[in-house]
Formats: sequence, structure tokens, C-alpha cells
Amino acid sequence: MDSSSPTARGERAFLRQLHCELTSRGRVDGPVPFGDDMATLDAAGGLLWTIDTIMDEVDFDSARYGWYEIGRKAMAVSLSDCAAMGIVPVSALCSLVLCNRLSMDDALDLMRGVRDLGAQFGCPVTGGDTNSWDHPTAVTVAVAARAEAGCAPVLRSGARVGDRVLLTGPVGGSILGRHMSFEPRVRIASEISRSLRPHAMIDISDGLAVDLWHILEASGCGAEIQEADLRRAIHPDAHRLEARDGVAALRHALGDGEDFELIVVVEPETPEETIRRLGLLPLGRILAERELWLVLADGKRERVEPAGWEHFR
Amino acid sequence: MDSSSPTARGERAFLRQLHCELTSRGRVDGPVPFGDDMATLDAAGGLLWTIDTIMDEVDFDSARYGWYEIGRKAMAVSLSDCAAMGIVPVSALCSLVLCNRLSMDDALDLMRGVRDLGAQFGCPVTGGDTNSWDHPTAVTVAVAARAEAGCAPVLRSGARVGDRVLLTGPVGGSILGRHMSFEPRVRIASEISRSLRPHAMIDISDGLAVDLWHILEASGCGAEIQEADLRRAIHPDAHRLEARDGVAALRHALGDGEDFELIVVVEPETPEETIRRLGLLPLGRILAERELWLVLADGKRERVEPAGWEHFR
Repeated sequence: MDSSSPTARGERAFLRQLHCELTSRGRVDGPVPFGDDMATLDAAGGLLWTIDTIMDEVDFDSARYGWYEIGRKAMAVSLSDCAAMGIVPVSALCSLVLCNRLSMDDALDLMRGVRDLGAQFGCPVTGGDTNSWDHPTAVTVAVAARAEAGCAPVLRSGARVGDRVLLTGPVGGSILGRHMSFEPRVRIASEISRSLRPHAMIDISDGLAVDLWHILEASGCGAEIQEADLRRAIHPDAHRLEARDGVAALRHALGDGEDFELIVVVEPETPEETIRRLGLLPLGRILAERELWLVLADGKRERVEPAGWEHFR
Repeated sequence: MDSSSPTARGERAFLRQLHCELTSRGRVDGPVPFGDDMATLDAAGGLLWTIDTIMDEVDFDSARYGWYEIGRKAMAVSLSDCAAMGIVPVSALCSLVLCNRLSMDDALDLMRGVRDLGAQFGCPVTGGDTNSWDHPTAVTVAVAARAEAGCAPVLRSGARVGDRVLLTGPVGGSILGRHMSFEPRVRIASEISRSLRPHAMIDISDGLAVDLWHILEASGCGAEIQEADLRRAIHPDAHRLEARDGVAALRHALGDGEDFELIVVVEPETPEETIRRLGLLPLGRILAERELWLVLADGKRERVEPAGWEHFR
């Protein structure tokens, strides 16, 4: 699911308006505020749910990737929302809008991709809807999930001043292929949730800076990222992309979308050894001041604009 | 949600294949078989869910209808699935794929239509996803619902030989406008579920004949429709359409999709008085022979082909 953020246009302006309007006509009581990675489905039963649509020519290119991989991605983006809350997927629905040019085999491959990735995470596809038209294919997956016993869903809004900001893995340059093949961080998220009781988490779909900004906005605080830490968290793909497009790998790491690693905010006293054991990469700290800073190697600070992909501009 | 049916092509062939393949990789235990109007989400909590996508130029025409009505329809088709099972909606998610030509006001009107119809049925929109592209708009709504205490969800598969077949209202000619403005039969479905304990139900989305066939196929039986009954169940719109296109109103009643009335199968001894009180229209009876017959006024029988709208042909 998507959420609001500061620029006054397009998707975010739309979502800010929606937030007011939707919550005025009834809501489901529960622990999760509107605009987090998942929504409350059933507070008593501890169920949350999420929905995501991916579209040809926007989120995937069917001329370059097979339909199985495309189906896999459709499931992966919704499972990534479960990871972002540290909860466990239980079942899924899939609605297909198929381009009429697809063959029966293409359509089945698409659903096999959806099904197989779901099955890997204990999340069977229980039903759906099949449609077709002469326009490009769009695939929607809804996933329901539940917190493990004793673990509340991790919200975006719990970051506190002084908390550490960590990453589950290196970022940047996902467009070279990882935006299709990524493994949703469901398992490590469960482990993080149990071991570290994080204050906030989000998955990087729009970009590191903009998704970290979502946490800061929801938590009413700011953050600083250490350049030296960020350099260690640059994915090799970001360097390869720099060689191609001339944009610094560091900028790719900050701005590229669809890494689907998690940003994890934990309390300051979290033991180094646990962080290392879980393979988490240090990135920075939460500040009171509502800004996002990059602290350069020479100690100077540079303001980071929370820019990233936005629909409906 | 859609389901399988007899013709060996397009959507139905696709769904038959899917049924085998999906259920081979894990399933959610529960009372509802694959391909019914809704799927089991959480058996312990008694939750079912459904997902439906409507698309411009296919399910609505944005040149003729306003975005508020279009949003309303997107919610209505999913609520109609709840009606088909006689259960009560609890919350919804909405994923938008907006055409980039839409204005902010159009997009908000669309969501207001989704929200307002949901609110009428106690079904708040708790979250969603917003996307855009240069192709036509598609709107997906997922709805979760729960059976009322003491009322199990009504499946398609419970029809028994000798049962009566009823309709919640007249059918045919919905394309003249009711396909956009219909009220999902959630409330009458609850009353039917409590008062009559129906053996089977479905909503008419593809057409009376084909949706009745879905019940017959799931229940392993056939049915006969009395022409005199069917004539009393022809909607005035079907007569208006006959005057335009020359196709008999009776054929429109049998074949037209998107009426969203319910087909209700009840035991033979159901009191006439209860049927009348609920405003149900008699249509025919369940047979052992796996055929669908129209019994003409002169006593002769005519085989009815379960034809109706099919995607991905």
C-alpha cells in the first residue's frame, strides 16, 4: 500500500485528501493508522491486509521479462508490505486484467509466478478475478497477514529521537533486475521483530530517502544518514548504473525505488552483536529536527530531498 | 470473484486449469470451495473475502457515466459477492489504476463513490494503492465479510433435487443503466439467509442462465425454469431493449449480465407466505438430470445454453 508524503501534488496530495475523506465515513478500529504499509482488517483476530497493483510498461516490461517473473513480482510487492510490518502472510487474492494478446500459457505462467512465491511464504492464493481487454496487463494482489504471538505489527510512527536507523541490505540500481527478482524480506523481518522489537519499519519501494521520510513524517521527527555508512550500503548494481548513466552510485542508493529492503529503526542501546548477527547495515540516527540530513565524510551536512517515484503527477 | 463453467475456452478453461494448479500449493482450510463467490480468508475468525476489478470501456464507459458512479459500481460488484453468500461486509481495500487524463477531482469523485456505497453497508475503505498510466482506468476493490451468528455462508454447491429456484428481483436489460446504479442485495440476502436457510445462492453477474448453471455445476444437478414464471421476472428494461434491438425480452432476461439480483435455491417445503413476504420471484425447480430446461407455456421443453459474458476469449 502507498502512503502520504510532503509534496503538494499528484499521488501524495491525492492521498492526503483521501485520508480525511475516507476516515470520515467509518473506520475499522485497530492499531494501524491510515497510510501505513498495511491496514487493519480485523482487530479482534489480529489480521491486517494490503493491496498492490503492478502494470505493464510502468512496474514491469513484458517485452523484457517472462510472465512467471511478472506474476512473482505481483506477489512479492504485497509480501514486502507484510515484511515492512514484521508480520506473517496468511493468504492472498489475485485480480488479473489481461491484455487480450496474452496466450493461455502466458496467463497460466503469470498465475504460477504469483502462486509459487506465495507458497514459499505460506501464503496460498485462495481466489481472484479474471478480466481481459486490449490494453496492457495489470495484476493486483491482496494479502492478509497476522502478527506472531507476542509481536505487535511494526508501524511507521514509532521512531524516537536517538534511535538507530538500519537497513536489511544494500540499495540502489534495482532497475538492473532486482526490481523483478527481489525476495521479500518477510523472514528476516520476523526475526528482527522478535529480536529487536523495532520502533518503526518500512520497505523501500519508492526510494531510500522518500521511504525513510515516510517514517520521519509519521513519527514527527528527522534523521541523519552518515555518508560513510551509506557508502557501505551501496549495492554493486548502483555502481554499475553509475558507470552507465554518470549519476553517482550514492545518489542511486538514496533515490532509486524498488529495492524492497527494509529500513529498521531500533532503540539506541541495541547490541552491536545482534545487529551484526541479523546482517543489518547501520545507516544513521533519528533527530528531533524535522529534516533529513546526509552527514558528509568531512563533517558537513547536506539536506536530502525526499524525492522518489510518484504516480498520478 | 469469478468461477468456472462448462465451455472449454477463455476465462473458464483458464479457471479450471487454475483450480488444479492453485490448490496443489497449499490452501486455507475452510468451508468454501475454490471458485465460489468468495474465498476463505480465516476459517477460525469466520472471515471470507473477494476481489473484483472493473475497467473502462469494458465494465463502464467513462464517457457516459460520472466517476462517482463508477467508483460506486466498483464497490457494488464486490458487495454483491457478499450478498451471494448471505454474509455481512466488514471492510474494503481499493487499488486504483488511474488514466493520467483524469483530474484530481475525477479521482477523488471515484474514491467517494467507492467510500459512500461501502459506508451504506458498514464497509469502510481501510487502505489501498494508487497508480496511474496512459491507458484506461481500472478499479479493484477487495472486500472481507463475515457470516452473522448462526448463519453459515451460502455456497453454490448445496442445491438438491426438488428444491425451488427463486429470484430476488426482475432481470434483463441492465445495460440501459442498472448495471451502474444497482443496489447490491446485501440486506435482503441476510434476511433470506436467516429466514429460509437457502441451500445455494449466487448473484447474477454473467447472466441468469450462466449463473444458474454455476450453481447446477457446483451442486451436480440440473434445473427447469417455467416460462410463465420467467415472464413475470422480466424487467421492464428488457422489454425496452427488445423494442430497440428486436431480441425477445425473455432472451434478455436469460442472457443479459450485470443484473446483480440473486438466484436463491430453497427447500421444496418453503412456505409461500415467506417467499411472498421477502418479495422473491418463483423461477423453477432443481432436477437430477444435468441440463437446464425452459418449460414453455405449451408444456414443451427447450434446452437453455448457459451462455453469457466471458473474459479472455
